[in-house]
Amino acid sequence: MELSERAQAARGAIEPVTSFFLSLRAMDGQPDVVDLTFGDPHEMPLPALVDALRMNLEPRAEDWFAYKTSLAPARETIAAGLQGELGLPFEPDDIAMTQGAFGAIALAFRLVADAGDEVVIPEPGWFYAPMLRAADLVPVRAPLAADSFDLDVEAIARAVTPRTRIVVVNSPANPTGRVYAEDLLVELATVLEAASRRHGRRIWLLSDEPYRRIRFDGIGFTSPAVCYPWTLIDYSYGKVLLAPGQRLGYLALSPEIPRAVRDELRAAMLPLQMGLGWGFPDALMQYAVPALETVSIDLVELERRRDRMVQALGAAGYALTVPEGTFYLWGAAPGGDAVTFVAALAERGVYVLPGTVFDRPGHFRISLTATTPMLERALPALRDLGPG
Amino acid sequence: MELSERAQAARGAIEPVTSFFLSLRAMDGQPDVVDLTFGDPHEMPLPALVDALRMNLEPRAEDWFAYKTSLAPARETIAAGLQGELGLPFEPDDIAMTQGAFGAIALAFRLVADAGDEVVIPEPGWFYAPMLRAADLVPVRAPLAADSFDLDVEAIARAVTPRTRIVVVNSPANPTGRVYAEDLLVELATVLEAASRRHGRRIWLLSDEPYRRIRFDGIGFTSPAVCYPWTLIDYSYGKVLLAPGQRLGYLALSPEIPRAVRDELRAAMLPLQMGLGWGFPDALMQYAVPALETVSIDLVELERRRDRMVQALGAAGYALTVPEGTFYLWGAAPGGDAVTFVAALAERGVYVLPGTVFDRPGHFRISLTATTPMLERALPALRDLGPG
Repeated sequence: MELSERAQAARGAIEPVTSFFLSLRAMDGQPDVVDLTFGDPHEMPLPALVDALRMNLEPRAEDWFAYKTSLAPARETIAAGLQGELGLPFEPDDIAMTQGAFGAIALAFRLVADAGDEVVIPEPGWFYAPMLRAADLVPVRAPLAADSFDLDVEAIARAVTPRTRIVVVNSPANPTGRVYAEDLLVELATVLEAASRRHGRRIWLLSDEPYRRIRFDGIGFTSPAVCYPWTLIDYSYGKVLLAPGQRLGYLALSPEIPRAVRDELRAAMLPLQMGLGWGFPDALMQYAVPALETVSIDLVELERRRDRMVQALGAAGYALTVPEGTFYLWGAAPGGDAVTFVAALAERGVYVLPGTVFDRPGHFRISLTATTPMLERALPALRDLGPG
Repeated sequence: MELSERAQAARGAIEPVTSFFLSLRAMDGQPDVVDLTFGDPHEMPLPALVDALRMNLEPRAEDWFAYKTSLAPARETIAAGLQGELGLPFEPDDIAMTQGAFGAIALAFRLVADAGDEVVIPEPGWFYAPMLRAADLVPVRAPLAADSFDLDVEAIARAVTPRTRIVVVNSPANPTGRVYAEDLLVELATVLEAASRRHGRRIWLLSDEPYRRIRFDGIGFTSPAVCYPWTLIDYSYGKVLLAPGQRLGYLALSPEIPRAVRDELRAAMLPLQMGLGWGFPDALMQYAVPALETVSIDLVELERRRDRMVQALGAAGYALTVPEGTFYLWGAAPGGDAVTFVAALAERGVYVLPGTVFDRPGHFRISLTATTPMLERALPALRDLGPG
């Protein structure tokens, strides 16, 4: 085997996703297939996004497309926005511009953690494990609460060891759509503070917040950064713009990080990003940040789709987690076996994501980025194969 | 210290560059400064580049800005181009699209090397060391030939140990402008093959070729891939387009890699790129590849600038390495101390790069991406401070 061990480990950790991905090729060329798998767009890109790109495409200076690190106007816009959203005094120097949340997470994992360190991740949760393996880190899974999929602070406490360096919190959560309440985050902060003292080593919190602005029923959002000072925040514009092919995101240092440490991390972000592969967004995307700050997919329409699917699938007997945010709907697979269920749906031309890719083989996920007509076309098959 | 050890090491390794970078802030706001430091554009972006972006900006499908891995048309264009340029039977699956050469190098370092492995890099050379530190790898410097800065195969042979996993070759070379002849590359291949057998572990060659198309006097180019089968090639469009702020590049597997290993690496590139932080170029940049394949800065004009500077500085007594490629001119600092020389030039409003950033404190580098009027404005100061 000529492949590095870390490349093998990363490939192994993402295998359930890539093999499902390959199975989707069966869809290619089939007419009338309804694809509810990934959070990809099924309508034309937002005109305001295209406008913002067009507006910044024509060069205005010799250095328009020269090497760009984190640009000041982008950082200033984001720091001001975060101040308003989270109520913490972010400054532009706290912001590292990255190629989406992937880039921000990759940066965070290497900024404070070294090879062999353990990182606690939620289960079910997003694809943190392959990213950790690629960074020579050890994923330790902490299950979310059994039925509610709420944050389970005791499960996290049990997962923490003297080698724990980071705990990842994802709210609004993919794939469950849950938004965690402040009292649970305060409880978590107490646990992490006590464990850091007990082990003589700081446990960092990575708050993965790409769905922060996608919430329903006017529900509030509390960032873990408000409850625990030692917090890094990653964000992506790929969700709210539904344009993940144009990479734009950031890593933000909490202003509550003690001054000396905050300064140390600020000074390290740029050289580390260069070392990791020049992880800055394209010039064009950074120029667009001020114009994009208020651009969003139609959240009212998204909530309407959520309501429709929750009502229709609920009436068909599905056990669902009613999403409070994100664009996903998470449910228990009838019969308890997502693979069989997903295969039977695929026979009917409806594709959903099996929980196997989230280490929960009894569940499935539907993406609400599908259009309403697509969702309506999927309902008969979902009803027929439902728990009845 | 809360910063990870690898972040500290990466920051330390790039410190000579970042501290010089900061010293450049002295330039800000000064009138008539001539900046000959980095390979950044000093003229408006190429109209053909802007056209290619504009042409691909308007969405033609719902998934125009959806998640994009390595797109087929881009890979096909590049594989065909490489076939013509290097004379090897590249296939689209050998190509991983990356965010510039930085991204390709970061991918290569993790594809075949694990934490603690040694990587032999040229000195003077580009900023491989911080990238290696960020990847938990150990840089081992092999000096280029003392006066000619040609490839020194014996120096590489001495640098190789049982822990060596990769040897980096950079031709045309930054900062020296040298292009290495085929006979030296054949010699190197013999050394690497013998050492691989002796140590029972394959030594890979990373051919860093971002300046491959920027050569003078009609000089030919031989890729190390032609001489040594176990070769990975990284490339960036940032040089030939002079637009490094719009990230576009690739990692290519040599078609000479034995079939089973080539298949193994092909299958691993995509999951590893996802794990490293979704290291694919933006959708827009990938769409532009076919249109960009034949776009280039004016190489005739660049050669004219090289000739002018080599003639003028040669007449002023400078000891220069006449560049055969790249857009750099490498010379010995008068008095032997680049820091003093660079500071004296800066006093006169002329900024050049001190060899300290390449671990060669007796030399300096001039970027020929400056305009001819800028170069002419710099000449009086360069003459006055020359060896006389």
